Amino acid sequence: MSKYDIIVLGSGPGGYVTAIRASQLGFKTAIVEKENLGGVCLNWGCIPTKALLKSAQVFEYLKHAEDYGLKVKDAEHDFDAVVKRSRGVADGMSKGVQFLMKKNKIDVIEGYGTLKPGKKVEVDGTEYSANNIIIATGARSRELPSLPQDGEKVIGYRQAMTLKKQPKKMIVVGSGAIGVEFAYFYNSIGTEVTIVEYLPKIVPVEDDDVSKQLERSFTKFGIKVMTSAEVTSVDTSGKGVKATVKTSKGEEVLEADIILSAVGIKSNIENIGLEDVGIVVDRDKIIVNDYYQTNIPGYYAIGDVTPGQALAHVASAEGILCVEKLAGMHVEAIDYGNIPGCTYCSPEIASVGLTEKQAKDKGLDIKVGKFPFSASGKASAGGNKEGFVKVIFDAKYGEWLGCHMIGAGVTDMIAEAVLGRKLETTGHEVLKAIHPHPTMSEAVMEAVAAAYDEVIHL
Amino acid sequence: MSKYDIIVLGSGPGGYVTAIRASQLGFKTAIVEKENLGGVCLNWGCIPTKALLKSAQVFEYLKHAEDYGLKVKDAEHDFDAVVKRSRGVADGMSKGVQFLMKKNKIDVIEGYGTLKPGKKVEVDGTEYSANNIIIATGARSRELPSLPQDGEKVIGYRQAMTLKKQPKKMIVVGSGAIGVEFAYFYNSIGTEVTIVEYLPKIVPVEDDDVSKQLERSFTKFGIKVMTSAEVTSVDTSGKGVKATVKTSKGEEVLEADIILSAVGIKSNIENIGLEDVGIVVDRDKIIVNDYYQTNIPGYYAIGDVTPGQALAHVASAEGILCVEKLAGMHVEAIDYGNIPGCTYCSPEIASVGLTEKQAKDKGLDIKVGKFPFSASGKASAGGNKEGFVKVIFDAKYGEWLGCHMIGAGVTDMIAEAVLGRKLETTGHEVLKAIHPHPTMSEAVMEAVAAAYDEVIHL
Repeated sequence: MSKYDIIVLGSGPGGYVTAIRASQLGFKTAIVEKENLGGVCLNWGCIPTKALLKSAQVFEYLKHAEDYGLKVKDAEHDFDAVVKRSRGVADGMSKGVQFLMKKNKIDVIEGYGTLKPGKKVEVDGTEYSANNIIIATGARSRELPSLPQDGEKVIGYRQAMTLKKQPKKMIVVGSGAIGVEFAYFYNSIGTEVTIVEYLPKIVPVEDDDVSKQLERSFTKFGIKVMTSAEVTSVDTSGKGVKATVKTSKGEEVLEADIILSAVGIKSNIENIGLEDVGIVVDRDKIIVNDYYQTNIPGYYAIGDVTPGQALAHVASAEGILCVEKLAGMHVEAIDYGNIPGCTYCSPEIASVGLTEKQAKDKGLDIKVGKFPFSASGKASAGGNKEGFVKVIFDAKYGEWLGCHMIGAGVTDMIAEAVLGRKLETTGHEVLKAIHPHPTMSEAVMEAVAAAYDEVIHL
Repeated sequence: MSKYDIIVLGSGPGGYVTAIRASQLGFKTAIVEKENLGGVCLNWGCIPTKALLKSAQVFEYLKHAEDYGLKVKDAEHDFDAVVKRSRGVADGMSKGVQFLMKKNKIDVIEGYGTLKPGKKVEVDGTEYSANNIIIATGARSRELPSLPQDGEKVIGYRQAMTLKKQPKKMIVVGSGAIGVEFAYFYNSIGTEVTIVEYLPKIVPVEDDDVSKQLERSFTKFGIKVMTSAEVTSVDTSGKGVKATVKTSKGEEVLEADIILSAVGIKSNIENIGLEDVGIVVDRDKIIVNDYYQTNIPGYYAIGDVTPGQALAHVASAEGILCVEKLAGMHVEAIDYGNIPGCTYCSPEIASVGLTEKQAKDKGLDIKVGKFPFSASGKASAGGNKEGFVKVIFDAKYGEWLGCHMIGAGVTDMIAEAVLGRKLETTGHEVLKAIHPHPTMSEAVMEAVAAAYDEVIHL
């Protein structure tokens, strides 16, 4: 029986990154994967969706070429080619992980792994033993009882990125990152899209101002947005699909070719042997301590199967921390209050820390500053005047409580806020860090200035 | 005679920002401008060039639509429309400054101002008096004796952005930000471009790896790059223009429609009364202290006329500091070692701090990390695999000495390094600041990881 220092179960951005770091630290490491290296993120999530969205973005430029002094005839998209490009990008990344596994001398065990007592993993009948086993099995699309997925007319994100044919009409249920990204993509290429959101606003975890801006942008863009709305039943018996949607105004029946269910995720904690080993689970999550140890010695869990935000970068960071701790390094527990979240529709959304409402609900005395891109020179030059940067500071201690951005390229701008908050910056220091001109990033400096009544360009 | 607390001479990004901050601080403020509010930056520099470059970027998408699964016929640019859009953006920004002047109750004095002794400024025969006078007259395109500008065949940046007709062939002399931005723009829309750089590499102030990458990208893109090359004479007598270029291989005569001279700038310190007042100048710059006071009490100078980097954001920061000091606020002198620089060709360039060579020349023991965008998932999805992030740390103290980026969108990513360096971050803190996935900004984290042998995706 092969014996490892560490076996990682699952090769998503949690698992494969953990395995690489483990190997760097000198552990003899194996990784178990039932499907494609890279997991959902590389194969069915983060990466291929960004490829689709890039095609949509370029298509928008084609449609609006005249705004930039350019001319085109017959701008068209080739749905198959767009999907094919996305699959190509995903395949390339998965091959990249293969290369990284090999380079780092990590054994890849293909097959479905289940945990066994005594720090063992069984993969298709073969048992492997390790000093430490790290569970990184991730999550999948959650199914609502009222909206069972048949993979044809009622689909999850996975089918949504490989449809054989572009739907003419689509209903997107749920308006988190996945929902609004697909809504944007399909609307951009000509599908008639309706978003149905149960809560009173879209992108419900974001700051209210961000949700309002996105609804405005989406509505202008031709997406129909229904909030405080619930799909109570679906009828797939006919040619398309009929969804009964309940709102405060009563019931309405929407017709479409396809319904995309994007109502969150469900952890992959079934049928992996947790019960057999005796690992404690609370509702949908494996309970772990600050170093990702479960209740059973030698068994660890990271990523979407644990309570933190179900995001790729969180999974990676947890896995790295977990194995660094195993290697005896001094590690600092992850600050789950400083995890950025990004949504890649257009306008993009990026945020970190408390929303204005959360800060107020905590009874904090706050200073809020907001700078719209309409007042930014770079945004004007780039034709990107939609959106804003909003910052929230503690009035008493100057702590940077939250940063919320919506606009072009903001997903690459949020890192400044994450690092600044980690380093316990004050607003004054952000203000006096000279931001280059002309950039979109000046809006961060100006929003901070606005919070302290020193804004220049408003 | 009107009496002000502060008169600002020149309304570029130094002057108008200074005036706004002065007014916020309660000073009765006037600003003198001989031409358009906003100065070179808004009217003839930063902003209109970014508009041109955006058109070029979109045109590239049109030309390569197939790469994204899209189809177009007859992608064309309309040179007049591209220029018109750029002028429209500049005009809009200049009107924005007009609005800001009015909103902040700043008197705008139109005309050519000259300094007079006794803290006075004369504008077209009228004298204005102030407690403090701030000189912010900026700079203009520098002329080489061997390359006199006639504004027709041998031009500066100003003419380059409003040509009546697109040149078929263009020689760009000098490869700083202005030179390479125009080279990129004109090449993109079909002009045959040759860059002639006196020094051994293009973008000479950047890290050597950045210069190499840009030369590779530009060459691939069809731009002819000549380094260690000098224009020794020009002949404009014929239809076009002939430039004699001296290189190590001998002399060569290049023919073109137009030569763009982009060999740096010259401060506007002539004919503004400096001698009359007795203000000390060293070569091309007005000598000031940390608070921008000249040798004559009551006279201050900021921006391109002073020794710091001749960049819009430096001028703004200097002006703000100057009037905050006048208002009795506690101010901290600007750290000229932490000024970011940006170049907006494609790939973009952004950098701050020491280059690898500068760090070595200082005898520092350094750790260098580099992460190529070819290994980034977001870059793959976006079709932006060109370029890298390179970081330099002091091996002993962990100080972040420099950060050098080349690639898509990096001009909005450098702010993280500026703020991190201002807050005296270590590499470890950058590494443990969780960057969102998938973003281009992860490359910063990975480059830092590479410096410390912890990189995951290489």
